[in-house]
Amino acid sequence: MRIAWIGTGVMGRSMALHLIKAGHELRITTRTRTRAEDVLAAGATWCDSPAEAADSCDVAISMVGYPGDVDAVHRGASGTLRARIPPRIIIDMTTSTPTLARDLASQATSLGVASIDAPVSGGDIGARNAALSIMVGGDGASVETARPLLAAMGKTIVHHGGPGTGQHCKMVNQILIASSMLGLCEALAYAQGSGLDPTKVLESVGGGAAGSWSVNNLGPRILRGDFAPGFFVEHFCKDLRIALDEARALQLELDGLARAERLYALLRDQGHGRSGTQALWHLFSAAAVPSLQQ
Amino acid sequence: MRIAWIGTGVMGRSMALHLIKAGHELRITTRTRTRAEDVLAAGATWCDSPAEAADSCDVAISMVGYPGDVDAVHRGASGTLRARIPPRIIIDMTTSTPTLARDLASQATSLGVASIDAPVSGGDIGARNAALSIMVGGDGASVETARPLLAAMGKTIVHHGGPGTGQHCKMVNQILIASSMLGLCEALAYAQGSGLDPTKVLESVGGGAAGSWSVNNLGPRILRGDFAPGFFVEHFCKDLRIALDEARALQLELDGLARAERLYALLRDQGHGRSGTQALWHLFSAAAVPSLQQ
Repeated sequence: MRIAWIGTGVMGRSMALHLIKAGHELRITTRTRTRAEDVLAAGATWCDSPAEAADSCDVAISMVGYPGDVDAVHRGASGTLRARIPPRIIIDMTTSTPTLARDLASQATSLGVASIDAPVSGGDIGARNAALSIMVGGDGASVETARPLLAAMGKTIVHHGGPGTGQHCKMVNQILIASSMLGLCEALAYAQGSGLDPTKVLESVGGGAAGSWSVNNLGPRILRGDFAPGFFVEHFCKDLRIALDEARALQLELDGLARAERLYALLRDQGHGRSGTQALWHLFSAAAVPSLQQ
Repeated sequence: MRIAWIGTGVMGRSMALHLIKAGHELRITTRTRTRAEDVLAAGATWCDSPAEAADSCDVAISMVGYPGDVDAVHRGASGTLRARIPPRIIIDMTTSTPTLARDLASQATSLGVASIDAPVSGGDIGARNAALSIMVGGDGASVETARPLLAAMGKTIVHHGGPGTGQHCKMVNQILIASSMLGLCEALAYAQGSGLDPTKVLESVGGGAAGSWSVNNLGPRILRGDFAPGFFVEHFCKDLRIALDEARALQLELDGLARAERLYALLRDQGHGRSGTQALWHLFSAAAVPSLQQ
């Protein structure tokens, strides 16, 4: 297919490369051209705007930062919906709000374009290995058309319902990750405080009933002092804020989520916005384990 | 080896059967004889007290409920240490306090008996499949002697250090499980509140960065309304209380753990002490999702 691709961050880059490898024609644009270099080297065509990239495409896919970016990329003055010949389907893979996904779908539909929300989980590793979980909302026929593209980037593709349901499912995903990260940090604080060897601890707990992706993938990174981003703290803050707003709109009081949102916002405000989510450990190593403060 | 086994609850029963299958001679006792019937049918010998069971044994193993039970089973008037000829090694696999593990080791040592703390993780399924993670504290030579027995019951056997370190590692494990369960319940409350199909949601999130043993094993049980115990709420309450006390003694303020301890105590007080840990959902389905209250 002829595909417009917008956004070549940590994950977007790997995902775009999988589509090229699967034989698709990619037309790309992104805010910082230098970050698109390996995708261009792999054969993609550079375009100066989403509208230009999307011209006469089958599909236009966005993987950007914030809901405001999603809005601009598709509905802005040079957005995909303003293409000379608009794409047949737009797919937003950014984690964004369910409300924007529904609005985008309704405006796209009025222009004869289908719109799918398809946020992902799996981080940088999942993106690199085409092992993402992709949570899909949108009308059934368009989702089936898009499925081969999604299958080139992910391993688990689940269609949840109409527009916005993919984003809702992603919020569920982020609520789980947030609680896992809090638990991991408290657990490591206890391990260090009680004098255990944390590497042996992860070996003991990672394969049993306490095991999780966070424990087994981010735990070792914390122990190595590796806070490089698989997923940015500042993006996770955005996701948790959306989840909390949506939960409140649904009259759900989710205290664990609220605590996670506060702590991640604090972490970002302390200058760790461009670190990976495992940097939450900085708050625990600092506050809870004074002996590490040398 | 000639082994005394004390305690045939949900997990102890499966674990004892693995030792019989591995060719060991088992002498068992437990509070309620009827709960030992399948172990007796498999060839174990019934004894009327821990002291009688432990007589002339190589090893005496306890898998009971509370620290008070551990104390009675080994140090009580008819405890294993009062056997006519005491065992060479006692192994407590109950989740108990690091302090009791150290005290037991020091008293046992004065009688020429080695003492190992070896609590487990993996729940009923792990016990049944001999796939437990076993967290071991004690002197190195005794741990090596015990290792073949532990390997017959578990898949991951890690020696953490001297007496009490196995229990400390188990506390790390329980801190992780507690946060996973809270996250799972908040996530399912959000999923239901936003109108998603929770079965599809678990399919989407279970294999990615939000995945965990809790999500993949207890999530489906919650959705089926299956609150049968893999691990009792009342035992988990005990574990969380120990973890919280130990954390405070280490001057660690672990808010997530404290919240989990409060919620599980509430759940127990509402009459769910003999349900499985996944019954935490009752608090969330009741408070957070009023539409489920019919």
